[in-house]
Amino acid sequence: MANSLGKLFRITSFGESHGRGVGVVIDGCPAGLAVTEDDIQSELDRRRPGASIAATERKEADKVEIIAGVFNGKTSGAPICLMVWNRDVASGSYEKTRFLPRPGQADYTAFVKYGGFNDYRGGGRFSGRNTAALVMAGAVARRLLAILGVEILAHTVAIGGIAAEPKGLAEIRENRARNPLWCADPKAAQEMIKAIEAVKDEGDSLGGVIEGVALNVPVGLGEPVFDTLDGELAKAMLAIPAVKGVEFGAGFSAAAKKGSENNDPFALKDGKIVTVTNNAGGILGGLSNGMPVVLRVVVKPTPSIGKSQPTVNIKDMEPATVAITGRHDVCIVPRAVVVVESVMALTLCDLALRAGLIPKVIA
Amino acid sequence: MANSLGKLFRITSFGESHGRGVGVVIDGCPAGLAVTEDDIQSELDRRRPGASIAATERKEADKVEIIAGVFNGKTSGAPICLMVWNRDVASGSYEKTRFLPRPGQADYTAFVKYGGFNDYRGGGRFSGRNTAALVMAGAVARRLLAILGVEILAHTVAIGGIAAEPKGLAEIRENRARNPLWCADPKAAQEMIKAIEAVKDEGDSLGGVIEGVALNVPVGLGEPVFDTLDGELAKAMLAIPAVKGVEFGAGFSAAAKKGSENNDPFALKDGKIVTVTNNAGGILGGLSNGMPVVLRVVVKPTPSIGKSQPTVNIKDMEPATVAITGRHDVCIVPRAVVVVESVMALTLCDLALRAGLIPKVIA
Amino acid sequence: MANSLGKLFRITSFGESHGRGVGVVIDGCPAGLAVTEDDIQSELDRRRPGASIAATERKEADKVEIIAGVFNGKTSGAPICLMVWNRDVASGSYEKTRFLPRPGQADYTAFVKYGGFNDYRGGGRFSGRNTAALVMAGAVARRLLAILGVEILAHTVAIGGIAAEPKGLAEIRENRARNPLWCADPKAAQEMIKAIEAVKDEGDSLGGVIEGVALNVPVGLGEPVFDTLDGELAKAMLAIPAVKGVEFGAGFSAAAKKGSENNDPFALKDGKIVTVTNNAGGILGGLSNGMPVVLRVVVKPTPSIGKSQPTVNIKDMEPATVAITGRHDVCIVPRAVVVVESVMALTLCDLALRAGLIPKVIA
Amino acid sequence: MANSLGKLFRITSFGESHGRGVGVVIDGCPAGLAVTEDDIQSELDRRRPGASIAATERKEADKVEIIAGVFNGKTSGAPICLMVWNRDVASGSYEKTRFLPRPGQADYTAFVKYGGFNDYRGGGRFSGRNTAALVMAGAVARRLLAILGVEILAHTVAIGGIAAEPKGLAEIRENRARNPLWCADPKAAQEMIKAIEAVKDEGDSLGGVIEGVALNVPVGLGEPVFDTLDGELAKAMLAIPAVKGVEFGAGFSAAAKKGSENNDPFALKDGKIVTVTNNAGGILGGLSNGMPVVLRVVVKPTPSIGKSQPTVNIKDMEPATVAITGRHDVCIVPRAVVVVESVMALTLCDLALRAGLIPKVIA
Repeated sequence: MANSLGKLFRITSFGESHGRGVGVVIDGCPAGLAVTEDDIQSELDRRRPGASIAATERKEADKVEIIAGVFNGKTSGAPICLMVWNRDVASGSYEKTRFLPRPGQADYTAFVKYGGFNDYRGGGRFSGRNTAALVMAGAVARRLLAILGVEILAHTVAIGGIAAEPKGLAEIRENRARNPLWCADPKAAQEMIKAIEAVKDEGDSLGGVIEGVALNVPVGLGEPVFDTLDGELAKAMLAIPAVKGVEFGAGFSAAAKKGSENNDPFALKDGKIVTVTNNAGGILGGLSNGMPVVLRVVVKPTPSIGKSQPTVNIKDMEPATVAITGRHDVCIVPRAVVVVESVMALTLCDLALRAGLIPKVIA
Repeated sequence: MANSLGKLFRITSFGESHGRGVGVVIDGCPAGLAVTEDDIQSELDRRRPGASIAATERKEADKVEIIAGVFNGKTSGAPICLMVWNRDVASGSYEKTRFLPRPGQADYTAFVKYGGFNDYRGGGRFSGRNTAALVMAGAVARRLLAILGVEILAHTVAIGGIAAEPKGLAEIRENRARNPLWCADPKAAQEMIKAIEAVKDEGDSLGGVIEGVALNVPVGLGEPVFDTLDGELAKAMLAIPAVKGVEFGAGFSAAAKKGSENNDPFALKDGKIVTVTNNAGGILGGLSNGMPVVLRVVVKPTPSIGKSQPTVNIKDMEPATVAITGRHDVCIVPRAVVVVESVMALTLCDLALRAGLIPKVIA
Repeated sequence: MANSLGKLFRITSFGESHGRGVGVVIDGCPAGLAVTEDDIQSELDRRRPGASIAATERKEADKVEIIAGVFNGKTSGAPICLMVWNRDVASGSYEKTRFLPRPGQADYTAFVKYGGFNDYRGGGRFSGRNTAALVMAGAVARRLLAILGVEILAHTVAIGGIAAEPKGLAEIRENRARNPLWCADPKAAQEMIKAIEAVKDEGDSLGGVIEGVALNVPVGLGEPVFDTLDGELAKAMLAIPAVKGVEFGAGFSAAAKKGSENNDPFALKDGKIVTVTNNAGGILGGLSNGMPVVLRVVVKPTPSIGKSQPTVNIKDMEPATVAITGRHDVCIVPRAVVVVESVMALTLCDLALRAGLIPKVIA
Repeated sequence: MANSLGKLFRITSFGESHGRGVGVVIDGCPAGLAVTEDDIQSELDRRRPGASIAATERKEADKVEIIAGVFNGKTSGAPICLMVWNRDVASGSYEKTRFLPRPGQADYTAFVKYGGFNDYRGGGRFSGRNTAALVMAGAVARRLLAILGVEILAHTVAIGGIAAEPKGLAEIRENRARNPLWCADPKAAQEMIKAIEAVKDEGDSLGGVIEGVALNVPVGLGEPVFDTLDGELAKAMLAIPAVKGVEFGAGFSAAAKKGSENNDPFALKDGKIVTVTNNAGGILGGLSNGMPVVLRVVVKPTPSIGKSQPTVNIKDMEPATVAITGRHDVCIVPRAVVVVESVMALTLCDLALRAGLIPKVIA
């Protein structure tokens, strides 16, 4: 396993869906940053199951505990360890499907890679539950980025084929929290909710697309030629279970454009260099260019569905079927919005430190 | 800069478009692998300018030299250094546009990040020329992967809005080298060529989409939860200049599917576990599942165009225009096909070593 | 901070002397290794205060808890998190000396580096208490190395100027646990104990030298030219607080020898290549040569002493004195013996994995 | 192989004794630093064979070439590649001893690790010749450190059992370059020269001890708990072939002291905090404390000696003898002085960047 991310703001995550809990160690956070459990909890609450019609009914208090690295309310320069303990664990149901890998899940590949020793309960280490580590660490990263004035906001732009209308930043900020889907287009949100309810009754699931935007990112974040801003963001996004693609700015639509259409002309605005359009998604040559950093990730439909699916019994090597009876999200997209924000924060924070833009001691 | 990629098969690249040359050091290649300059040259020739109607007229012999790490025709276990020297360098034309950042290029961001000390000639370190390092190192990686039977092939699936028809593997293998675009659909290729010629006359450029496929990849490549197969591939792909997005398997189209449609059922075939469909693109839980690894990258239209474009003089901070007169690819997609293959090879090779699937000494 | 060690068997430690506890995350441990809390506890007990006349009177149950990564008694391939919670914490005494850096301690340098935000209680992150993380992780490493037949044993060879007579391996194995100092020379041990008691009465402290030996190490561990066996061991040893030097084989005494005296001639023994002497300490060219790996570290006298010492008040910038009244080891050497073994185990384990000598799944 | 060192000032070395040449890539050097080939050459000349009575007669021009990363006389932010080409290569003599590993050399261990594929000529990758890479990169590091006012000087303190008298800094600076041994004690130097001449006639060799001192090092360099200043220095020093131990400040002599003797009391001097003594060698808790950083390394006697030595033919697995007829240093210590300085510079530079003390762009 390779459970660390980042070079100077480096997180190491651990834990399993049905083990003792889920945690994260942050190494490299500057000293003197004010951080409380409440700061982290408010982000964590946004990914809580039950906050959305689309989500699993599993009840997790998910109360963060600061285990190390914060002293008198401020980071001490020592590694920060944050944990949530598992409480509501119903693992009995997994025993009978132990050798029946669920389509679209990591069951089969993990079984082969770890020789069957992996914790298979609820996906174990591969569970979406482990994104709690990303959110906890991301909450600290966001506080660091706030020093630079960086604001990060993500929102749902598509679910089950229903696309939201493009909205301006003001509308995104205002509208997205008004519905449980974190969608900035209220009308589309209503349709999405209907679509979710429909597939729920069928025992099926839906995916979607999340857009993440980072504002006030200084010019020059990213370390070419490999540790680019887009490369690091892409790698980190793909650590979110169910994400199957990522694009920046115009993304895949650029394939149908001419250079003269896709290039963003430079201009002056209030004495600063800006681009007139933002097809680049704020990234040129792997470096932030001062415009909003814009990315979109596709979240595949939740693989855990109630419908019976063909599989293979990996013990007997016989064809079989599996029907999943546990509690699962019909559509994980709304809960993943805060995860996308957190992952953006982690990456931007690491690259801001690498660029020397955040001091080692916060005065 | 962060010019290294990979953990166990680790490459470090160096060089500039208009400097002495471009090189790469490979650290971690097992000893005993037969490698000749010819092996590397044959891959390098595929990205040579002039091999395609779409390409720049710059003539580069691009002859690889093995500087270190190969002894008596085999890798010695020491770091391998490979170089191509620059010969046909016309840098005079860059002097007059030094302070006029070209839209869509790294000129502006590099200027800010490196305080103006960066080599601006032809994009310097940010030039597509540096992909020669990826191809040279990729050629070694491919020879290592051949031990596992892994085959990698990429092909052009779209240029300028013209999409190729989906083709089977046999057709891809057979057709793609029959046209200068590396497109497996001969009919689409003809249309693409016409589109390229049209924009060439306009002084404009086109982008496209490349699909990369890796066959016979063993189950279990990828190191969750962060150094996943898809995460590492995505990061590496975004190191190719002009790539603005990457997707795996069904990719962004999964957003409109139901779970029951997108999940790939498991089945037995010749006593082995396979999936009936491959919406996952051969990757489950960040690990290869034994099916073909399939990805697509979008290549934006070449930003260097002959048309005059608005910019800002970064010395005087005044509005200006820039028209690019140097030699440039109208469409970089065909030359990037071998680069996509090389990057896939580098990533798969690193992860195969991390999974312990390639011995440290090749007998 | 940079709280990780190792590349493939990678540990990340966290915690403070007077915080919630001390923990470690192990990333990269092969799956299928049997590990229980008892296995770890037995090593941890060897560094417990109170086990030795030389030690602090602080009472710590130091009961290890496995937080993650072990499933049904075996490693699962997921990161392993191990913790000991702090219980007997008397931190009040540190408040009054907060701005009086203790000579020989990290108080002053940490204050400057972390801008005074560091947890100063009992040395905080710099406390010897954090070696519990090394011992916990080392216990897992030892179990992995046992697969290769590697045995590691350290012993005290000098305390306060009293040197132990050189002993053979059999004697070291048998004698060292018979006295609280882990010294293989019973006579010297008696003198060392007297010396310790004498300085205890003076409110002073003693240092010493520990020798570590690893047996049955396969040939070829170490990754030249920088990640050598000796280089990695040296770096790791210097992470033990109070260690101020490390030497291998003949070490510093080689400076007075001729090449013909210092070179170890090769010979055949039972059909295997051995060296007749072992001045190299089992390491040639940074690689293990199959002979016992032998190193010695110097442990400086415990800096915390009862005697009044000159210092500077770093708040007022005025000369001052500090007398340390807390509980401290008169001589830390005996408790550090197991730490030296643990650090050797961690390093050897990482390099054995890098050399491909330990499988990814333990059958 | 693991041919990289450093995290933010990261060097990757390549090359072999009898291949095309020896080179190094520096990744992470700030932009805008003035560097010429002459700056590097002057350091490289100090390790040139033939500059000393003690050295091999091999003649190497060793002219450095800047291959990449310097533009208009200043670092550009791109990776810097530096090379010296091999010219005077007499490799014929190595063929007949190919299967006769020389005692004290890496021949045997490299043969096993790399399955016999390693370049065995002159030690190949394990040759002392590769220290040229350290010196070239070190020259760049020194120029960066000069920005902070850091001065590094090493000198010979013992050869073949003859110890130099301790000298003050002024004398070290003035005296060491006055004799070919870089020894600050002229009288001892004379004796050392005699000792070297004596063993030369015997076909034998001598080792010694080098002391390295770094002045004006800012407080707080080093990243606890593993990437400490002493840990990083120790690891890097052990990458120098023939170094078998390292100690800091009082080093091994601290084992015989009491805490009250070994602790360095803090005091005020010109309004700054200093220590009255420097037994800590400028390092407390793994962090620089502002006092001179002082270390000593032991260099074993050159293993290549003319005298016949017992070995084993590793092809036939039969006892044999080997007598080395090539050109070799009788005592490598004098040539290693600049290497010790270079390695100190590389380590301090990396840690200064990690501590945020050197800007990313040198104005």
